[in-house]
Amino acid sequence: MMVVVTYDVNTETPAGRRRLRNVAKICMKYGQRVQNSVFECSVTPSDYLVLKHDLAAIVDETCDSLRYYNLGSRYSSKIEHYGVRRHVPIDEVMML
Amino acid sequence: MMVVVTYDVNTETPAGRRRLRNVAKICMKYGQRVQNSVFECSVTPSDYLVLKHDLAAIVDETCDSLRYYNLGSRYSSKIEHYGVRRHVPIDEVMML
Repeated sequence: MMVVVTYDVNTETPAGRRRLRNVAKICMKYGQRVQNSVFECSVTPSDYLVLKHDLAAIVDETCDSLRYYNLGSRYSSKIEHYGVRRHVPIDEVMML
Repeated sequence: MMVVVTYDVNTETPAGRRRLRNVAKICMKYGQRVQNSVFECSVTPSDYLVLKHDLAAIVDETCDSLRYYNLGSRYSSKIEHYGVRRHVPIDEVMML
């Protein structure tokens, strides 16, 4: 299934900037960064539990925010894009 | 139906900062800001067309990015949150 992860991390401190990098590193294991603070992650139900657990262990819940949007397994018609692109969608093969 | 709007606007110029403010202003007509660049908009199909048209008319497609995630009408089980909150969810009444 496809889960969109969006996050706001308070980067006023070096610790915050480290949290931001680590959030992105974890999300990258499961999917693609499509905007600065938005990842599209292709996960199994158990992956999803691990992803949420790992992210919760990293962020500071008093000043950071994580949101998860579960699009299910048939998601292509649910996503639309306008403007500059940042990534190659998971299903499309990059033409070399 | 609930549509999540996420955006990256290039704010290196005064024009970019103006585009960012205007994107937020338009999204606010339809829903709630839940993170810096994330809105949850409750729209009818025709609202959705107008929303996308109005946002496309504002952003610079060569350097800005808009993404829309359509969660449909039964969306509450599809959204999860962790950490600090920014808004009152549309369905919950704020206790005064």
